[in-house]
Amino acid sequence: MADVNKVVLAYSGGLDTSVILKWLQDTYNCEVVTFTADLGQGEEVEPARAKAQAMGVKEIYIDDLREEFVRDFVYPMFRANTVYEGEYLLGTSIARPLIAKRLIEIANETGADAISHGATGKGNDQVRFELGAYALKPGVKVIAPWREWDLLSREKLMDYAEKHGIPIERHGKKKSPYSMDANLLHISYEGGVLEDTWTEHEEDMWRWSVSPENAPDQATYIELTYRNGDIVAIDGVEKSPATVLAELNRIGGANGIGRLDIVENRYVGMKSRGCYETPGGTIMLRAHRAIESITLDREVAHLKDELMPKYASLIYTGYWWSPERVMLQQMIDASQVNVNGVVRLKLYKGNVTVVGRKSDDSLFDANIATFEEDGGAYNQADAAGFIKLNALRMRIAANKGRSLL
Amino acid sequence: MADVNKVVLAYSGGLDTSVILKWLQDTYNCEVVTFTADLGQGEEVEPARAKAQAMGVKEIYIDDLREEFVRDFVYPMFRANTVYEGEYLLGTSIARPLIAKRLIEIANETGADAISHGATGKGNDQVRFELGAYALKPGVKVIAPWREWDLLSREKLMDYAEKHGIPIERHGKKKSPYSMDANLLHISYEGGVLEDTWTEHEEDMWRWSVSPENAPDQATYIELTYRNGDIVAIDGVEKSPATVLAELNRIGGANGIGRLDIVENRYVGMKSRGCYETPGGTIMLRAHRAIESITLDREVAHLKDELMPKYASLIYTGYWWSPERVMLQQMIDASQVNVNGVVRLKLYKGNVTVVGRKSDDSLFDANIATFEEDGGAYNQADAAGFIKLNALRMRIAANKGRSLL
Amino acid sequence: MADVNKVVLAYSGGLDTSVILKWLQDTYNCEVVTFTADLGQGEEVEPARAKAQAMGVKEIYIDDLREEFVRDFVYPMFRANTVYEGEYLLGTSIARPLIAKRLIEIANETGADAISHGATGKGNDQVRFELGAYALKPGVKVIAPWREWDLLSREKLMDYAEKHGIPIERHGKKKSPYSMDANLLHISYEGGVLEDTWTEHEEDMWRWSVSPENAPDQATYIELTYRNGDIVAIDGVEKSPATVLAELNRIGGANGIGRLDIVENRYVGMKSRGCYETPGGTIMLRAHRAIESITLDREVAHLKDELMPKYASLIYTGYWWSPERVMLQQMIDASQVNVNGVVRLKLYKGNVTVVGRKSDDSLFDANIATFEEDGGAYNQADAAGFIKLNALRMRIAANKGRSLL
Amino acid sequence: MADVNKVVLAYSGGLDTSVILKWLQDTYNCEVVTFTADLGQGEEVEPARAKAQAMGVKEIYIDDLREEFVRDFVYPMFRANTVYEGEYLLGTSIARPLIAKRLIEIANETGADAISHGATGKGNDQVRFELGAYALKPGVKVIAPWREWDLLSREKLMDYAEKHGIPIERHGKKKSPYSMDANLLHISYEGGVLEDTWTEHEEDMWRWSVSPENAPDQATYIELTYRNGDIVAIDGVEKSPATVLAELNRIGGANGIGRLDIVENRYVGMKSRGCYETPGGTIMLRAHRAIESITLDREVAHLKDELMPKYASLIYTGYWWSPERVMLQQMIDASQVNVNGVVRLKLYKGNVTVVGRKSDDSLFDANIATFEEDGGAYNQADAAGFIKLNALRMRIAANKGRSLL
Repeated sequence: MADVNKVVLAYSGGLDTSVILKWLQDTYNCEVVTFTADLGQGEEVEPARAKAQAMGVKEIYIDDLREEFVRDFVYPMFRANTVYEGEYLLGTSIARPLIAKRLIEIANETGADAISHGATGKGNDQVRFELGAYALKPGVKVIAPWREWDLLSREKLMDYAEKHGIPIERHGKKKSPYSMDANLLHISYEGGVLEDTWTEHEEDMWRWSVSPENAPDQATYIELTYRNGDIVAIDGVEKSPATVLAELNRIGGANGIGRLDIVENRYVGMKSRGCYETPGGTIMLRAHRAIESITLDREVAHLKDELMPKYASLIYTGYWWSPERVMLQQMIDASQVNVNGVVRLKLYKGNVTVVGRKSDDSLFDANIATFEEDGGAYNQADAAGFIKLNALRMRIAANKGRSLL
Repeated sequence: MADVNKVVLAYSGGLDTSVILKWLQDTYNCEVVTFTADLGQGEEVEPARAKAQAMGVKEIYIDDLREEFVRDFVYPMFRANTVYEGEYLLGTSIARPLIAKRLIEIANETGADAISHGATGKGNDQVRFELGAYALKPGVKVIAPWREWDLLSREKLMDYAEKHGIPIERHGKKKSPYSMDANLLHISYEGGVLEDTWTEHEEDMWRWSVSPENAPDQATYIELTYRNGDIVAIDGVEKSPATVLAELNRIGGANGIGRLDIVENRYVGMKSRGCYETPGGTIMLRAHRAIESITLDREVAHLKDELMPKYASLIYTGYWWSPERVMLQQMIDASQVNVNGVVRLKLYKGNVTVVGRKSDDSLFDANIATFEEDGGAYNQADAAGFIKLNALRMRIAANKGRSLL
Repeated sequence: MADVNKVVLAYSGGLDTSVILKWLQDTYNCEVVTFTADLGQGEEVEPARAKAQAMGVKEIYIDDLREEFVRDFVYPMFRANTVYEGEYLLGTSIARPLIAKRLIEIANETGADAISHGATGKGNDQVRFELGAYALKPGVKVIAPWREWDLLSREKLMDYAEKHGIPIERHGKKKSPYSMDANLLHISYEGGVLEDTWTEHEEDMWRWSVSPENAPDQATYIELTYRNGDIVAIDGVEKSPATVLAELNRIGGANGIGRLDIVENRYVGMKSRGCYETPGGTIMLRAHRAIESITLDREVAHLKDELMPKYASLIYTGYWWSPERVMLQQMIDASQVNVNGVVRLKLYKGNVTVVGRKSDDSLFDANIATFEEDGGAYNQADAAGFIKLNALRMRIAANKGRSLL
Repeated sequence: MADVNKVVLAYSGGLDTSVILKWLQDTYNCEVVTFTADLGQGEEVEPARAKAQAMGVKEIYIDDLREEFVRDFVYPMFRANTVYEGEYLLGTSIARPLIAKRLIEIANETGADAISHGATGKGNDQVRFELGAYALKPGVKVIAPWREWDLLSREKLMDYAEKHGIPIERHGKKKSPYSMDANLLHISYEGGVLEDTWTEHEEDMWRWSVSPENAPDQATYIELTYRNGDIVAIDGVEKSPATVLAELNRIGGANGIGRLDIVENRYVGMKSRGCYETPGGTIMLRAHRAIESITLDREVAHLKDELMPKYASLIYTGYWWSPERVMLQQMIDASQVNVNGVVRLKLYKGNVTVVGRKSDDSLFDANIATFEEDGGAYNQADAAGFIKLNALRMRIAANKGRSLL
């Protein structure tokens, strides 16, 4: 066991991290600094203060990180049209590096030599927290109680809480059977009936969106304005990044948009099933591709597409704070200089349909693309030479007997 | 102008290719062989026979290629989860290599030294036809009338038809303002109001699907059975590839699924806007990812994802009959040996939701993924070492002053 | 500590693995099966038998794996022109999966439940042995003494040997200051003065090759015959794979070929300096590229080049026995069907120069490539159209004000 | 034929471009501006002035572009360790975009509406010149006489020259049988006996280097100092980029370094054989990899290696002035911020051997890499967890019956 003087704990105020707080104090006999962040998870963060104080914590950090989260993490990620394994919008993954960064900043401010978190030993989040922490403060000690202690069932955890006077809140409503995680980008569900990949998810699991069935019978139209690849206005009204995302979550959720049920590959080696609600993100992905479709050069777009899976994996596996992610980001960001304009979308019962896109930087030129005659910008006869030379290597090969027929 | 003895023409029986037929006979003074294929475009192909005969054609080929099309082209493409530029399912692109192949086979059978087609000099299809033709028969001559003649407006074309007694059918209904192309995988629309990227497509443009608004209020559930990455049964009933796709088109179209409105980058260098209806293909893409999600190794899946954009571009740009496409295909096909099982889908007003997937070859193991204690298959303490070594290079760099903070 | 009944040990017969053998017997109180392989390291393997017997080992495997090594591991790897980090020919990496395979085969034959090896906890070899073992026999136990015991210095090891009556051979010649590993592909050197990256390696370190300075003043010419990407004859004389490589090592070494001094990135996260002698492999890499240069399609070659770094990393990091390496291999092997012909090389004082290559499957056509007029196979005017269409997207962009000037 | 008022001609002063000059004046009846550049080809550029004047040219540009060439083209390219098809250092390719840029700049200055060059219709250079020109000035007209005229043999060219009073210099020495191109990075040879891929190149073809046989019997040691990935000093003496390259050419050539004989794939579709002398570039490639080996993060280095073939192809095929090359360059340049330090090389009869590298930014840490005990920076036990989790997905698969044994 490492010798620890002071540890910064990512503290939600909930039962699990409250038990961890107590356990750290007892087991490591060290001072605990708590850090609670508002990332848009939709729960009050202030109550964490009283709870921490009640357990004798002297240094308590409660931060509203919503703008930083969207501006410096969510937006950069969407510039790459990032999707993990064809489906997942990385809602959990993208929040972790910000938490890691704040843990280390607070450790530096408070002179702490360790950090701690409530992620289990089987998931991706431990990796994301700890890779970030090590990258930003290489000598930091990391305490991951779920990998160390023996409180590995809910029952044991409750016993420990009871024994140490940690209040177990009972909301009246039944404990959710799902392990959930939320921030401004999404809410996720794991466990429970989802552990059988053949069982359909339950309708009452979802929290952020109505079902397509219950969404309005009337479509909603919105216009998103882009500047350098980022949304800066909705329906012409300029908004901050976090406000944009919150608003898109509201509109998307109301129209039944953004539900996902997948089996994904964790970095630690197993497959797991997750359900996700990402209303705003689902809209953003579609819209960003649409604005890029008229403003981005073809080969730049294709190069981005070829690198995207790698970039997505880096974020999924916790390498946000790595030099290779930074290097890719520089390229992605540079590609966005002309990604300006407006996208018009129709939202209807789960569907996001692009119905218009325009830009002063548009590379679309109807006069060249049209089937009708044009005034010389494009000479159709050129195509013959274009095809002939592109075919040459295959013709030579076929002449040598390599025809695929 | 090339000296041509006999030319095989891809002949639809419509006005444009009828004019081409006549023009070839007149201009090249050569014999014309017509080839008309049923690729599932939903129009009768037999009428082409009488029309060709009326113009003096002696060798007339009319083939039902629907099964070959889906089995040897569509299915292999979907094994790669192929999407061009993040959206387009390549419905037109994938039909062209089969037509190229048949043109060359017929040229070989009939002793023709040339082929001809009705694609314009501005589009992708000319490239797809001709690259295929050259690759399969390197000495073939290619006649692309749209690049050669001066009938470059609809008016001139009509004049030519009238002058040469080519019947211009008037169906009673107004001529569509769109340039359309259909096969069993999709129907496409270009031109007309679509040439302004900001103008919304018209509801009455769509032909294969109802709108989500007009789709049933009740969801439809289907189960798709996969064998080696291909769908072999719907709701437990084994079906041939073409029957599978036709059935999925029917079900998907009825539920408002598969409409797309995009701006894409053509191989010849300009951007163009297209609308597509791909009901069955939209279902297939989602379902294939779902069955792969439980049966494919993570790194195999990621490698496929990284190579997919390249593979999609090869198909889009007409390189189906190239050695690099074949090489990629061998790898993709090899990856599908364990992609067996059943996917359950919910279809509702434009939405395709995966609600279950199962397989005897599933790599999903709830005992390992669970958050609860397990019997030793996974030792949570291993994660500490895993993270530490993955972090080592970043810690060393940070120690050398390269921290990103 | 795992409960072990019988363990298969990769046993060289040297001091380190002899101590391990004893340590396993004592610490795990289990039966030890020894496995000693001739991979062309140039040392007798039979003496290992008596040593093992002297320590009471009942099941002793001594295998000549040279042909299997070159045929099934070295040759497939060279089909991809595999180089790690631009320089390293993977001589050590490629031998490990074969040893892992034999360890598991022997475990299965002898009913052993564990394997053990003498690789340290800081290097790549532990990973390569163990990933292979786990992939081939998922329930196997692995004992890596260097990660478990406290004999972490040479002194402690010698003490242990002395105490347990393990003979410490003194060859008369001084113990090499380098950690070495050899097989038919290469010999490697690490440690000693090499741990300062600025210090030049010592001339008397090298064992397999003369220095360029001491190589003959007369060049040696050889011709290598390829079939499906593999060398099957030297100077027209057919030879088995292992004989080919041994012969090329002899010729190459005599001409001062194949020395390398690099700093590489280990999988476990640190940089290390290694020196390598790979005389035959250095010749093979050059020659393979030469035969491919006339027989391989351009795009196939480029695709291979783009995937090679990934493939090299997989081998370096121990993923030979992974589904993604197998998938890549299928593609690589498929590409080699036409890689047939002869390459002529000049070897002189460290230089390998290609001076000729010929093939019945050559795609080189002097009539097309020549600067003189040709008979119509290539129409120079086609190039104008080729360039125009390739330039179109950039012209459109420049027209929109995006010129890079 | 395009209507041209004034054309800027890339003019060497030699016979071919003199004929072109005359032919342009006659055929297009337009004013010709000549542009002659010193790119380090080793021939006087001033004589071109008198020749142009003699043909009535009024606007004559003669530029010394050597520093710009190395600083803005060669150096950036070497930051990526760029090699085309495993061998070619792109000596010709990298000079073309600079010439294209100057042609356009001069066209803009002189009000010319066209450019012209002496590249043939079968090679890569026409593409490189013209793609660059179109990208930088989209409306420019391009005149490529070799694709237009009928002077397609040397004989006809000579006749034309004689008829129009263009002096055909006879140097006393026989006309080289090779088509050559030179600049500060390399000299290339094509044609002649090289058109048979089996025939060895002739020793007296080479112009820049002695043969290894004739190189000194004593090795030469040099030290190269890097700053941000570029060489800034040789043996501690700071030099400008062009001076560095000239000096390395001298030292390398004197030591028999940098000869290459390959068959390469041209962009226009055929294979061609070329011989190249790149003495300085061969040294630079080796040295750059060496300095990166101690200063670059592993994953950054691997990402660079994966993208390099694409980047090399872009340069080879003439896309220097494309947005995708610029995007890649931004990433490559960003990666070089820590690539500082000194590399020590031994040059001997064709061999470039790295014998030392050091850097204040070195990530090499002997204390971590050593086989001896260390003070806790690396815990060998961590490796067990690292391996176990990396193996997990393969163990699960093997448990499901997918073992590769």
